[in-house]
Amino acid sequence: MSKSEIGLVGLGTMGAALALNIAENGFDIAVMNRTNSVTRDFVANAGDLAPRLTATEDLQGLVDALATPRAVILMVPAGDVVDDHIERLRAIMDPDDLIIDAGNANFRDTIRRAEAARDSGNPYLGIGVSGGEDGARHGPSIMGGGDRAAWDRVSHILTAIAARHEGTPCATYMGPGGAGHFVKAVHNGIEYADMQMIAEIYGLLRDGRGADYGEIATLFERWNDGPLQSYLVEITAKVAAAEDPKTGKPLLSVIEDTAGQKGTGRWTAIEALHLAAPVPVIEAAVAARNMSAVKDARKAGEDRFGAGAGRFDVPGDETLERAMIAGKIACYTQGFDMLAKASEAFDWSLPLPEIAKVWRAGCIIRSAMLDDMAAALADAPGTSLMLSDSFAKRVEDSTPGLRDTVSKAIAAGHPVPALAAAVTYFDTMRSHRGTADMIQGQRDYFGWHGFARLDDDGRDHHGPWVE
Amino acid sequence: MSKSEIGLVGLGTMGAALALNIAENGFDIAVMNRTNSVTRDFVANAGDLAPRLTATEDLQGLVDALATPRAVILMVPAGDVVDDHIERLRAIMDPDDLIIDAGNANFRDTIRRAEAARDSGNPYLGIGVSGGEDGARHGPSIMGGGDRAAWDRVSHILTAIAARHEGTPCATYMGPGGAGHFVKAVHNGIEYADMQMIAEIYGLLRDGRGADYGEIATLFERWNDGPLQSYLVEITAKVAAAEDPKTGKPLLSVIEDTAGQKGTGRWTAIEALHLAAPVPVIEAAVAARNMSAVKDARKAGEDRFGAGAGRFDVPGDETLERAMIAGKIACYTQGFDMLAKASEAFDWSLPLPEIAKVWRAGCIIRSAMLDDMAAALADAPGTSLMLSDSFAKRVEDSTPGLRDTVSKAIAAGHPVPALAAAVTYFDTMRSHRGTADMIQGQRDYFGWHGFARLDDDGRDHHGPWVE
Repeated sequence: MSKSEIGLVGLGTMGAALALNIAENGFDIAVMNRTNSVTRDFVANAGDLAPRLTATEDLQGLVDALATPRAVILMVPAGDVVDDHIERLRAIMDPDDLIIDAGNANFRDTIRRAEAARDSGNPYLGIGVSGGEDGARHGPSIMGGGDRAAWDRVSHILTAIAARHEGTPCATYMGPGGAGHFVKAVHNGIEYADMQMIAEIYGLLRDGRGADYGEIATLFERWNDGPLQSYLVEITAKVAAAEDPKTGKPLLSVIEDTAGQKGTGRWTAIEALHLAAPVPVIEAAVAARNMSAVKDARKAGEDRFGAGAGRFDVPGDETLERAMIAGKIACYTQGFDMLAKASEAFDWSLPLPEIAKVWRAGCIIRSAMLDDMAAALADAPGTSLMLSDSFAKRVEDSTPGLRDTVSKAIAAGHPVPALAAAVTYFDTMRSHRGTADMIQGQRDYFGWHGFARLDDDGRDHHGPWVE
Repeated sequence: MSKSEIGLVGLGTMGAALALNIAENGFDIAVMNRTNSVTRDFVANAGDLAPRLTATEDLQGLVDALATPRAVILMVPAGDVVDDHIERLRAIMDPDDLIIDAGNANFRDTIRRAEAARDSGNPYLGIGVSGGEDGARHGPSIMGGGDRAAWDRVSHILTAIAARHEGTPCATYMGPGGAGHFVKAVHNGIEYADMQMIAEIYGLLRDGRGADYGEIATLFERWNDGPLQSYLVEITAKVAAAEDPKTGKPLLSVIEDTAGQKGTGRWTAIEALHLAAPVPVIEAAVAARNMSAVKDARKAGEDRFGAGAGRFDVPGDETLERAMIAGKIACYTQGFDMLAKASEAFDWSLPLPEIAKVWRAGCIIRSAMLDDMAAALADAPGTSLMLSDSFAKRVEDSTPGLRDTVSKAIAAGHPVPALAAAVTYFDTMRSHRGTADMIQGQRDYFGWHGFARLDDDGRDHHGPWVE
């Protein structure tokens, strides 16, 4: 039997989809799952692709089925299971065999594993794969991290299976160690923010304007033909239009308003805090999911204070569209600034324009605007996205709409935490003279922490405090 | 020479102040600093208190100077230095000698150290000490964590040196392990939020109303006679009134608007994310400090977009006062809810009313309102602060002022991130029917994550998606 070019462990939803994608692109792949029947059924049901798939029964069988130097993709649950597989594979593989963790690892784990691999002279990659099951099957966005040489060894496979944006594959090497998984985490943080801002606009339409679900669907569909064109806006229209097969009612009207999370948005917010990178829109989105989870508390709040989100004169469609554009630019500016800060802190040399490019197709946050962002980030390296020429102009055009929407929503009692975070971020970041002089004065008063003066370079001045 | 009742290592600002406080309260204390001359000078300059102080030259000398069972307070820099001291002290102390870390430890380190101590049968305490140098010297707020029996052994000293609120000492055992340092971290998170909201109101007065510093000082002084009475509002008035000795100008006008941080506010935000506890006002305050630090970026923003924070018809003094009251209640509600969540997660049985009590004096966030909070939390255990009878009424009275202030500030272009987070938090937490149904619909569409239905107890329903 001829040897396979690559192996894959873990035939869950994502692993199975990725294996079929690899086979479909012409690569022979050996697969293995802890439960052998899963592996057998998977190959048996693969139809035309079955000849490219080799079912193996255990890790030794998988290793034996691969051409050398070997490459094995792990698609197992993040955490200890990954460490366990690495240990068992290393015990039976050759030193130059490659392990690729394509699961949802926390980038700090990937840094640790990459360092351990380097110390023992083994190649290692941690790659972020975005796009859900459909992406994994038909073309995900792939964010690679780890050894550059290892990436080059398998990049022909990864670029072949990746999504394409106008012919360019969305699979890019981001940097050493945990760079790939880090970029994926920030992607997910932005995804949370995009979704939350859409949900807030949906709330204004549903509760403030009293629009029905069909009208809401139509509006998002229309927005998807303009500057907001994106996968999330597109599916928002579909979700709003969907009918519940059980009751015939609009589907949204029967879905409970408590959002789940797998934690990657939360990781992004935590890492931003470690980096001292302000990402208030992402933080607001994570907090909103946490608040959605405590429905009993929200009921008690409404019982006591009354619901605020009643009818009011909601700004027009164009204003709301501008609000979403401005919110989106604020959020992506925060995300890219955070990536720049991480790149410096971890010495990764993250290619920001390439990150925007790799997100243009295959992943959840894919949008027309990302193409322009890639260009803007390439044109003015080191410049914050919202200050780049093309985006500064959009910010000027759209921020009045955001401001109008948020101030009126707050006046009317509607919850708009992420949109509000976007506008207060913008106003803070265009205030050369802020108000932290008061905070520095207070800190010096109570803790003798010292402050910098505007008329002096020293950092350790004190006020004339006498107790 | 008679033996001392307690020992202290580390005569930095806080350690020296604490040692004098202990001596002044009638306890003999042996002290030690890495640099012997510091120890000698400290005792030589202690005046009347010198007879109660015993200078020792190294850890062995310190241990020899103490009555058994010994108790040693560590006031050394947080981190490895603490571990190093514990290791060296344990090597020369008896098993039942007590080590008390009174520094700014991350509570996770305290948990680890407390567990290690318990495993080897040694008593250990981690205590949060708040109030800065002045508090440490004349009466801090003390939040104890670790072994209950160890706390009981030294509580007569800790309560003697603590601040008092109407006779009640502000020194309380919070719970095992890292409970004390955790409560201290949340204190600091709230401190960040309180300070940021004050800074935002200051900005509205200074830039929006065009008030001069004297007027601002007078206003905060007046507010300090009302429901906002607190140490921070009191010193805000003093900071605003202060004159720069060098130029004769108002001191604030020469202080650079870039706020420092030692990281405890950030820890609070990070732990809140781990706990899935929404603390948006604290997060906004931490983000605001991070944004204050990037002054060049803010200048670039102003150069491109123009400063937003110009004159406008700022709401009246009473409205601003209500805004601060409502913001404060939102922020403390978040803080106490986070403490409740941590108490459950770490199995600490944190006494929430006692926490409010211990913050009433000695610490930076001390305020008149905390006395009422202690009563409200005791009256209705398990009820969110803002839903307690006495605070719900204040929320109703004050939230319109917050809403008016934030919506007008945002309309006018003024940055009010923390106040905006307070009002959007309030509006989210009184919306029984939120908008996360849209997020759940999207997540199911792109990732088949499943959703709960309003008409069914199951959690794993799906939409009729056809690709």
